[in-house]
Amino acid sequence: MLTPELKNCRFLKAARREATDTTPIWIMRQAGRYLPEYMSVRRKVTFIELCKSPELAAEVTLTAQRVLGVDAAILFADLLPMLVPMGLDLEYAKGEGPIIHNPLQSAADVDRIQELEELGSLHFVFEAVQRIRRDLPANIPLLGFAGAPFTLASYAIEGGSSKNYLNTKSIMYSDSGAWRTLMERLSRSLIRYLNAQIEAGCQAVQLFDSWAGCLSPADYRAYVLPYTKMVIDGILPGTPVINFLTGNPALLPLLREAGGTVIGLDWRVDLADGWKTVGYDVAVQGNLDPVSLMADLPTLKRRAKAVLDGAGGRPGHIFNLGHGVFPEVPPDHVKALVEMVHEMGRNG
Amino acid sequence: MLTPELKNCRFLKAARREATDTTPIWIMRQAGRYLPEYMSVRRKVTFIELCKSPELAAEVTLTAQRVLGVDAAILFADLLPMLVPMGLDLEYAKGEGPIIHNPLQSAADVDRIQELEELGSLHFVFEAVQRIRRDLPANIPLLGFAGAPFTLASYAIEGGSSKNYLNTKSIMYSDSGAWRTLMERLSRSLIRYLNAQIEAGCQAVQLFDSWAGCLSPADYRAYVLPYTKMVIDGILPGTPVINFLTGNPALLPLLREAGGTVIGLDWRVDLADGWKTVGYDVAVQGNLDPVSLMADLPTLKRRAKAVLDGAGGRPGHIFNLGHGVFPEVPPDHVKALVEMVHEMGRNG
Repeated sequence: MLTPELKNCRFLKAARREATDTTPIWIMRQAGRYLPEYMSVRRKVTFIELCKSPELAAEVTLTAQRVLGVDAAILFADLLPMLVPMGLDLEYAKGEGPIIHNPLQSAADVDRIQELEELGSLHFVFEAVQRIRRDLPANIPLLGFAGAPFTLASYAIEGGSSKNYLNTKSIMYSDSGAWRTLMERLSRSLIRYLNAQIEAGCQAVQLFDSWAGCLSPADYRAYVLPYTKMVIDGILPGTPVINFLTGNPALLPLLREAGGTVIGLDWRVDLADGWKTVGYDVAVQGNLDPVSLMADLPTLKRRAKAVLDGAGGRPGHIFNLGHGVFPEVPPDHVKALVEMVHEMGRNG
Repeated sequence: MLTPELKNCRFLKAARREATDTTPIWIMRQAGRYLPEYMSVRRKVTFIELCKSPELAAEVTLTAQRVLGVDAAILFADLLPMLVPMGLDLEYAKGEGPIIHNPLQSAADVDRIQELEELGSLHFVFEAVQRIRRDLPANIPLLGFAGAPFTLASYAIEGGSSKNYLNTKSIMYSDSGAWRTLMERLSRSLIRYLNAQIEAGCQAVQLFDSWAGCLSPADYRAYVLPYTKMVIDGILPGTPVINFLTGNPALLPLLREAGGTVIGLDWRVDLADGWKTVGYDVAVQGNLDPVSLMADLPTLKRRAKAVLDGAGGRPGHIFNLGHGVFPEVPPDHVKALVEMVHEMGRNG
């Protein structure tokens, strides 16, 4: 049950497409390497140690929300640890990003993936959620998140990030049975994982389909949409889901079809066009080009205004970047952006 | 002046949206590492030695066309050597891709870029064109190409390929004067370079905007479209231009606005939707997902048929991949694809 403060907070009102006093904003990867407060924690622990420490994960989550003055906190966590109890051997190599040492190299390997039944080994995630919720301001919602089924499948198959998704698409094209098995196991696991985040204290969840932009609309429809839809349909009723995909505006009508209370737009589409495409009967989140934060403040303001103008004052817009904030960005620019949006987004 | 054989070849008829006996096809990067005949040449010389040898560049160009039976040859060359006489210090490091040792790191650096006036140092390109044209079958057109202004600018600024184009966009956003200077010098240089390819014997040219998909429509319109248009408008009259961009279907209306006889579509959009978007009064090229070539032949055939079905038998479709062919692809699959398209694309 939501408290009245949360029920009437800017973020959740906008997700319901109700009018708000100003446009709510949060920033993807807001607790990240651009922020000195985050870096001072990271100097003491590795990335995965930080993810696994409920105390430190809560600290960086809370600090980012407080320092920036954003309208939502997002759990500090990573997309991939949920794959470990499913049978994958994950390592965060120094300066190299995540590596899976036993990727699914063929359709036959798919049977190695176990559905996530028992969530005990991911307890650090839910404990972090509890701590954050306890210490967050009463009117600030906490967002949980996970990778969407395609993005997780491509990590599991490629063993890391990929340029062309050769192995993923090869399995997808050549063995639809193995693909379905993999995507179903991931989807059922995601439902449990996300619902456990909600039960621990999250007010909304975001699905990140960070790699699905490499797909044609026909392939997304055949091989991805049913599973993303399965996950969204399985989320506890009443909890908003932000359905976010990056890299291909031609998929937006299908993203909408897959579901979600809020559709996340990347910056490759003009916000006005993107909202028109997904329909005004759904809220949207986005979509400033993250590189805008490298520009001088007058330029940043002009670019933020263009995004707000694209929304045209219509209730249901949650301001965000079109992708995560870069480590190179001056933290003062992020703070300034939050103030600008609150100022320029004010109604009446 | 075109010979009658060339004037009536499949490729050029399709570029004029005239009916053809079957759908013409060629493959981006058809003279590439997947092809054993190419690799046997590459074992003797480095990539840049191959680019700079008119004899060997002609050999790999001609061999690929002959072995595959495609309806066009494309000059074997690279996007970047034209930047060398413009003042950039280019190296092809072994296994690393191109590196520019003196990239444009700030707006002030832009003045280091000299416009390409004298083409003598690129003579190897035009000599390759002459050799290829001399030895190509009389009914096979030769395509020249170059990088589009944005793609060249981003190489010149980032010093190589880039994930997020931080430096490029930073200059673009913060110093519109420097950006204009850079893009104008590149555009005027491109006009001379492409027209010299045409004068040496190319029947059409393709502009590759391989990296422009990182831009929002508003940024493409403000910072890129005028320069791509300048290049296309400067091409010798009567020569078809293929205007190709990858990575963002939301830019297609603007790509069309920039010009071109043929609009190149990547695989992120369904061909039928892409053609409708750019308009039926222009020809289109594309757009099979290149990973399709990794699949078994029945799957490949089904996927090629879906692209042909998207074109719906309308004159003006040139079959291609949505991007270059991967080195991992079995050469027999590429040959089979050419046969399939010629067979399935047959009219009447």
